[in-house]
Amino acid sequence: MRESLLLIVLFSVLCVTSAEADEPAPSHGIGYPAGWRNWATLSVSHRTDNHTMRVILGNEVAVKAARSGKTNPWPDGAILGKVVWKEAVLENWKEAVVPGELVHTEFMFKDSQKYAETYGWGWARWLGMEQKPFDGGAQVCTACHAPVEKRDWVFTDPAIFPK
Amino acid sequence: MRESLLLIVLFSVLCVTSAEADEPAPSHGIGYPAGWRNWATLSVSHRTDNHTMRVILGNEVAVKAARSGKTNPWPDGAILGKVVWKEAVLENWKEAVVPGELVHTEFMFKDSQKYAETYGWGWARWLGMEQKPFDGGAQVCTACHAPVEKRDWVFTDPAIFPK
Repeated sequence: MRESLLLIVLFSVLCVTSAEADEPAPSHGIGYPAGWRNWATLSVSHRTDNHTMRVILGNEVAVKAARSGKTNPWPDGAILGKVVWKEAVLENWKEAVVPGELVHTEFMFKDSQKYAETYGWGWARWLGMEQKPFDGGAQVCTACHAPVEKRDWVFTDPAIFPK
Repeated sequence: MRESLLLIVLFSVLCVTSAEADEPAPSHGIGYPAGWRNWATLSVSHRTDNHTMRVILGNEVAVKAARSGKTNPWPDGAILGKVVWKEAVLENWKEAVVPGELVHTEFMFKDSQKYAETYGWGWARWLGMEQKPFDGGAQVCTACHAPVEKRDWVFTDPAIFPK
């Protein structure tokens, strides 16, 4: 019995270690957010200035806030994810602009205490298919987000979903 | 003890009944797919011909197939969902096209036996915020999807996600 328990503990430790080893290194000291690929959609966008397509995802806290309209400010614990691709044309419907090559993933982590110095958000970005951590400094992110300072620094209006 | 059990059963029945009562009626005889709002993203698109923005979602079977590249044919049990909005402009970034008013939700249900007569898919659509069932006939859907007959009737190329 005691041996079984030891094996279970050992196996669990190995699994966790293995998962961590596969993950990209932190960006701006922030760890890679687990499981974001299965997060629900908050919105989508097509940026015609830099020719990119985006989906904006949210963790559970963010989705709950978005769907109840409580997003100014967003609650602590909310994480917003933006997956950015170069625009491409759908082969079988030329008038449809769709995702091509992956550019990067970007995340905003809300924690009004921990990230007080960067307006209540932790700012992180991972580049390309390798998800190489970006470490150019949060000011690169906040400079671009300045126009939405009064919207808790978030551009996204959550898309309207039927109830 | 027996009374508690009875209460639990009764409560469960009431919950299920209540959930069903709130759901939209079937479209083309197909029931409204539960929980789609939290499905993971397969792709996004911007149709410049009819000025709509879309997110394409998948249930667990569909997401697994998409991420392992096994989509021609898609496996039985896969459900693809398309949420369609009129295009709008983001107030604080005018070059970003984003979702405006909801147009409808559309779903394809893969079951090669059950839906053999409509190319292996059940085709359903619910209109507007009220999610009013569309019952114009599956041929309305398949006529538009004819250009992708050899892609198992699916336009969407799953977007590339980092592993």
